[in-house]
Amino acid sequence: MSGLRITAVPGVPEVRAGADLVELFCAALDGAGLDVLNGDVVTVTSKVVAKAEGRVVPCADDEEAKVALVEREAVRVLRRRGTLRLTETAHGFICANAGIDLSNTEQGTAVLLPVDPDRSARRFRAELARVRGVSVAVVVTDTFGRVWRNGVTDVALGSAGLRPVLDLRGTTDGNGRVLQATEVAIVDELAGAVDLVLGKSSRTPFAVVRGLDASYFGEGSVKEHVVRSANDDLFR
Amino acid sequence: MSGLRITAVPGVPEVRAGADLVELFCAALDGAGLDVLNGDVVTVTSKVVAKAEGRVVPCADDEEAKVALVEREAVRVLRRRGTLRLTETAHGFICANAGIDLSNTEQGTAVLLPVDPDRSARRFRAELARVRGVSVAVVVTDTFGRVWRNGVTDVALGSAGLRPVLDLRGTTDGNGRVLQATEVAIVDELAGAVDLVLGKSSRTPFAVVRGLDASYFGEGSVKEHVVRSANDDLFR
Repeated sequence: MSGLRITAVPGVPEVRAGADLVELFCAALDGAGLDVLNGDVVTVTSKVVAKAEGRVVPCADDEEAKVALVEREAVRVLRRRGTLRLTETAHGFICANAGIDLSNTEQGTAVLLPVDPDRSARRFRAELARVRGVSVAVVVTDTFGRVWRNGVTDVALGSAGLRPVLDLRGTTDGNGRVLQATEVAIVDELAGAVDLVLGKSSRTPFAVVRGLDASYFGEGSVKEHVVRSANDDLFR
Repeated sequence: MSGLRITAVPGVPEVRAGADLVELFCAALDGAGLDVLNGDVVTVTSKVVAKAEGRVVPCADDEEAKVALVEREAVRVLRRRGTLRLTETAHGFICANAGIDLSNTEQGTAVLLPVDPDRSARRFRAELARVRGVSVAVVVTDTFGRVWRNGVTDVALGSAGLRPVLDLRGTTDGNGRVLQATEVAIVDELAGAVDLVLGKSSRTPFAVVRGLDASYFGEGSVKEHVVRSANDDLFR
């Protein structure tokens, strides 16, 4: 558990509804002379997942129309400030503007979140295993703000083949004492790590992470393990 | 901007008050046959920074004493649930239990946060430049929870030599449209990325990140750029 290599996969064309993301990933990989191996993690931005799944909707290019779309798509609005809405989505994510994206889209359109990003990750994983014969984990990433810190970071909206939150409770530290509660959201750390090499262009939606400890792989989903129930949080 | 390599630096002894962290870092680096180069980012956990700076205080091993210490150290308590306190620290960080750590410490003690983690990062950076002749960025990391997502992730408490929040606003996307507000908290993404290779032992407090885009280096501090003012947040 000493080294991690994160590589962006360049050369991906604009993604349209119905696109085969695994095919696009493999073509870009081959075109760049890169490879994907057993035990790698492949990440894909939720935006291209959503586009491929046809989650592009018409939206007039004015603030009023955008806010109306956000309020329709959100299951709950927690806070309003100007045109910003802090929302809960149907998935249970708490994020700005129901996760709807207006950049990197064609004029007059907006991109909603994928309906079920964990399912999208599972499908990508299964299809990649089928066409390339490799067993990898997959993380679907997106960009969220934080309540008490400036700046956005990428987090995981969906995953497959990973233990999204790694429970280190009960393991002992250097002094033989049992560690305090330490459940590490490794899927979110992976998403943020990959963002450091992706930049913000839509043309590099994929990255490959190599060298993740074998113990991090396993079963789980973001919806089940990362999304916090309203009962557990202190601010709903 | 296509590849990042993250390497944990093993073999660091227990850190005590007055320890020279740069000396420990260099010895561990050499012992492991690793190197540090111009343009790398070196990360160090806030726990060993705090220990080296003598921020270890006595604390009885019972819940009441721990809560009392937390309430004394916090400048404000935002929420109370059981023995958990959601606090604002003197630095302006919003985190559990005033950032005080009771694991990886000697029995009957607790470790407070460094007084000024940005200053700690600047000192480490300057000292490393002096003894090794390399120009690197430095990030002091710690583990924080999140309001609406399960699991903790590592974030930056201090930094030197980096632009902590990278402003991508005004750059154009693949369609030539100006991107929406996208200020990326790269110091936090770096901290989380490194956590993926560190594990939770106190014996690997250092990591080296290689391959970060040159445009990410520059001036700034976590206190100035990442800590959100109370006026800007929706939950204070």
